[in-house]
Amino acid sequence: MGVIVRELAAGDWNAVERMLAESGAFSPEERAVALELVAEWLQEGSAGDYPHFVAEMDEEPAGYICLGRTPMTKSTWHLYWICVRPAMQRRGIGRALHDFAEHFVQARSGQRIVLETSGRPDYAGARQFYLSIGYRPAGEIRDYYGPGDSCLYYCKEF
Amino acid sequence: MGVIVRELAAGDWNAVERMLAESGAFSPEERAVALELVAEWLQEGSAGDYPHFVAEMDEEPAGYICLGRTPMTKSTWHLYWICVRPAMQRRGIGRALHDFAEHFVQARSGQRIVLETSGRPDYAGARQFYLSIGYRPAGEIRDYYGPGDSCLYYCKEF
Repeated sequence: MGVIVRELAAGDWNAVERMLAESGAFSPEERAVALELVAEWLQEGSAGDYPHFVAEMDEEPAGYICLGRTPMTKSTWHLYWICVRPAMQRRGIGRALHDFAEHFVQARSGQRIVLETSGRPDYAGARQFYLSIGYRPAGEIRDYYGPGDSCLYYCKEF
Repeated sequence: MGVIVRELAAGDWNAVERMLAESGAFSPEERAVALELVAEWLQEGSAGDYPHFVAEMDEEPAGYICLGRTPMTKSTWHLYWICVRPAMQRRGIGRALHDFAEHFVQARSGQRIVLETSGRPDYAGARQFYLSIGYRPAGEIRDYYGPGDSCLYYCKEF
């Protein structure tokens, strides 16, 4: 089965809400912030500052990604959110989402994508995923999110 | 002459606009973003997400600072802007602004302040200032702002 990546549409709202909750990786506050950006994208359309894309498998949303141009930079973008339904993980959906986003960024003269993620043990799979698609560690701030929960900066240069 | 630090008020607008321009450190886009946050603070008052404080010397605004709680963290804050009029630099105004901000953060159970700054040669004085008040380097992304203009992450733990 192939993966199709397309712009996130209003009909995806429930699926995105569900995958953010099911993933277990995000706190209620994080989910609220993620959904705020989804709402902004749905309201502003292609003019919005935070493009969102959905990966479909078997005509069902299986994951989504959100990125944006980094203000006050010439060619830097941030990857803000990426989430794949737990039942659909390890099938190349995260990679397909990121490939799509990367082409999107390159088509807009972007030269790098930066992301911030957690150093917690339960994020080991996510960190491994970022390394496998070409991100490199760029820094760390200990206890950033909370006690024992550091922030790791990663960057992928094109 | 002593330095007084107080909340930024509507009457400071012109002085802030001028010091951002005079400092020579900020691009027009950066100044626009900085002033957007000033406007938001003036509109929302103490309920705003980005507290702003002004340092006065001889009853004239000599510098200002803007900070904010970092979303999705328990006790992390970001220092977004700090600017001292060129003619008033090297008189302890930056330090007075930061001391005030630090007490403000600590009074709200903040445990660290994070900032991003440029690795450009003309920011050497700013970087030296951050080190002198207790910040430590936490990471670097090359060419982040533009070619040859890296982003440096600094953190001060309390």
